[in-house]
Amino acid sequence: MIDVEEKTIKTKREFQLIDITNEIKKYVLKKKVHEGEITVTTKHTTTSIRVNENECRLLKDIKHYLDEIVPKDREYLHDDIEKRKNCPKEEPKNAHAHLKALLMGASETLPIKNGKLSLGKWQRIFFVELDGPRKRTFSIELIAK
Amino acid sequence: MIDVEEKTIKTKREFQLIDITNEIKKYVLKKKVHEGEITVTTKHTTTSIRVNENECRLLKDIKHYLDEIVPKDREYLHDDIEKRKNCPKEEPKNAHAHLKALLMGASETLPIKNGKLSLGKWQRIFFVELDGPRKRTFSIELIAK
Amino acid sequence: MIDVEEKTIKTKREFQLIDITNEIKKYVLKKKVHEGEITVTTKHTTTSIRVNENECRLLKDIKHYLDEIVPKDREYLHDDIEKRKNCPKEEPKNAHAHLKALLMGASETLPIKNGKLSLGKWQRIFFVELDGPRKRTFSIELIAK
Repeated sequence: MIDVEEKTIKTKREFQLIDITNEIKKYVLKKKVHEGEITVTTKHTTTSIRVNENECRLLKDIKHYLDEIVPKDREYLHDDIEKRKNCPKEEPKNAHAHLKALLMGASETLPIKNGKLSLGKWQRIFFVELDGPRKRTFSIELIAK
Repeated sequence: MIDVEEKTIKTKREFQLIDITNEIKKYVLKKKVHEGEITVTTKHTTTSIRVNENECRLLKDIKHYLDEIVPKDREYLHDDIEKRKNCPKEEPKNAHAHLKALLMGASETLPIKNGKLSLGKWQRIFFVELDGPRKRTFSIELIAK
Repeated sequence: MIDVEEKTIKTKREFQLIDITNEIKKYVLKKKVHEGEITVTTKHTTTSIRVNENECRLLKDIKHYLDEIVPKDREYLHDDIEKRKNCPKEEPKNAHAHLKALLMGASETLPIKNGKLSLGKWQRIFFVELDGPRKRTFSIELIAK
């Protein structure tokens, strides 16, 4: 079976790690497949899809770390809105979010085994909001038998 | 349909973000598939495949940022060519490019929906040259129905 | 053919780049497929799957670089074990390993062409141990014809 579905979420903060694991698990169960793989891909350039542990203090470490290696309040050419062609004045200054998304990446692929999403004990799938809050979309691509 | 194709490009500078989106879009249209996924994988260890926005000032920010977090002109063991076994003297000093490629990654997977590559509004696929100019190759893997 | 298999390895050090390319190549040959793709996904949140060159001095550069951009001995909220709920006291202080895994990623997808894993000249697949030594597992997802 090949299936592609889009899911929409509303993020609530500028930076947010949203655990979408249960939604992906339910989707896989509903498709009644046995074995294969699933890919989660974001549809935005200031968000990312990552797999990590959902421990609340670690999630804060991740926020602090990303803000440290890609500071928001530096001078970026992309954030000098007036010098960009055809750029609306209300455009957010989000070069830092693009750079964080560049480092982390847009997609991850995970196995399906014995009819369900096969994650390690601590693995959770996160939609990473880097320039919210906004309405956001990600895609699930299923290839399985 | 399962299809794998290699594409060759000639990069022009040491660092270059080459927008390969139109080429991937055309390839998908030509295959006349309805739904599935496409993966783009680089064939080199000093290049990367990334999805981000093609805004010319942002592309400069990306170059500056990567040069800052992985400086070229530091001492790397890999760049001390004489100490490496069986290493030709003309070997480029490119440890920084390997490290940038390590952070960013070699592949991204994107959805195909309604017969075409389904990207978000600002998403573009880039072949990231980190140690050019050179002749480079990337692979497209299509799994779709 | 769709096939998913798990492989277990024993890592030997805290940080280790384990070249799993030959194992993946053998697996692909054994499956007798012609064309498609293979994804390698780690099952842990303090490990990563990456593609890079296996040059021994570069592997040391990678270790030094990762330790530099994500130092182990800083204060991380995740490492203050007593403040975490239901956390056993013997839990390792491994926030740095989670952050390194976040930057690098959990999976990579590579092409299969002419019946074998199609890698570039210098490309090798690494299981990246960031908090060993431990028994670790990764998954291979094959979609090919």
